Amino acid sequence: MKLPVKTVERLGRYRRLLLKYQYLEKPYIFSRDLARMLNINPVHVRRDLMLLGVSGSHAKGYDVRNLIDQVSIKLECLIKKDACIVGFGHLGRTVFDLFVEGGTPINISAIFDVSPKSINHTYFGVKCYSIEKLEAVISEKKITLAILAFTGDDVDTIKDLLVACGIKGILNLTSQPIDLPGHVHHEEFDLRTSLIRLTYFSDV
Amino acid sequence: MKLPVKTVERLGRYRRLLLKYQYLEKPYIFSRDLARMLNINPVHVRRDLMLLGVSGSHAKGYDVRNLIDQVSIKLECLIKKDACIVGFGHLGRTVFDLFVEGGTPINISAIFDVSPKSINHTYFGVKCYSIEKLEAVISEKKITLAILAFTGDDVDTIKDLLVACGIKGILNLTSQPIDLPGHVHHEEFDLRTSLIRLTYFSDV
Repeated sequence: MKLPVKTVERLGRYRRLLLKYQYLEKPYIFSRDLARMLNINPVHVRRDLMLLGVSGSHAKGYDVRNLIDQVSIKLECLIKKDACIVGFGHLGRTVFDLFVEGGTPINISAIFDVSPKSINHTYFGVKCYSIEKLEAVISEKKITLAILAFTGDDVDTIKDLLVACGIKGILNLTSQPIDLPGHVHHEEFDLRTSLIRLTYFSDV
Repeated sequence: MKLPVKTVERLGRYRRLLLKYQYLEKPYIFSRDLARMLNINPVHVRRDLMLLGVSGSHAKGYDVRNLIDQVSIKLECLIKKDACIVGFGHLGRTVFDLFVEGGTPINISAIFDVSPKSINHTYFGVKCYSIEKLEAVISEKKITLAILAFTGDDVDTIKDLLVACGIKGILNLTSQPIDLPGHVHHEEFDLRTSLIRLTYFSDV
């Protein structure tokens, strides 16, 4: 039984904030401080912490390291999932930087691009391959997730290849719509649509 | 009276697709083709086109150029809104590339960064300023929208400065939560949370 999306998002935010506090001398935190720092309703925070089965002390609050462990277990992110980035322009490099910085539940194990400047180069130990090697590398490295970060109109061709390779989840950052079979999880972010919303709804 | 968010998003997607087709020899399109290419329910598409007050021909469909004009009027994007990008790493450059490519409703009129490599350089006619010049430049150029694309923990300081400068809308790409006064429109995309959702909900 999977948790609701909103709960997963909040747990992810707690984890990210807590990771910053874990090396303090006395890493304890009150749920009201967690709520305040993340602009989340304190009632939601307390309910989420109950869901994790952790309890805090009245005097000190919650043990940060224990909280990180429990959130990580709940989000199933103790074992990083193998992912690839398709497209290594600015957007692909943004995702890669997050991975290098740490704290994400993914392990980037391959990068694919079409530019000779990137192909066969290794970035923090991760090799960039020609897009033509997509199927072979995904199969060899048992990659299960893909992040689409290219521009251009090839999204359907790439998507079909990824599905045929047995990819289980796609984060589509291309601003192009894709249609996936039901067994492949689909996350999408479309920066162009965000810019339309920004201009339309801002009172300018 | 503003349109609902979902309608705005769909109109934005139609516009983007139609812009690609406008230079065809006979730029006409059927609503069912628009629906199919964008993976949108055809009923929604027809309802949206009715809302625009355009009518198509049974034999040829809708006039693409007229449709682009009507959508652009409805989305109020004929006059581009002046925006700035704060943070010119990979993420800021992704947004800038979209602006240069065209079709977005924004006009990037300033870039702010902390890196001496970028400061005082001009990119496609747009100057990159030191973050210290934020207030002066926003005021001088009458910028009303801001895209936050930096990493780091200064988000509250920058946000307070922007609000004090009279910014009307913020697209927050920093993965840091911000709290804005009600009169400032807030769009947010948090790539780190997307990665958590991707790994948690994909069946891997």
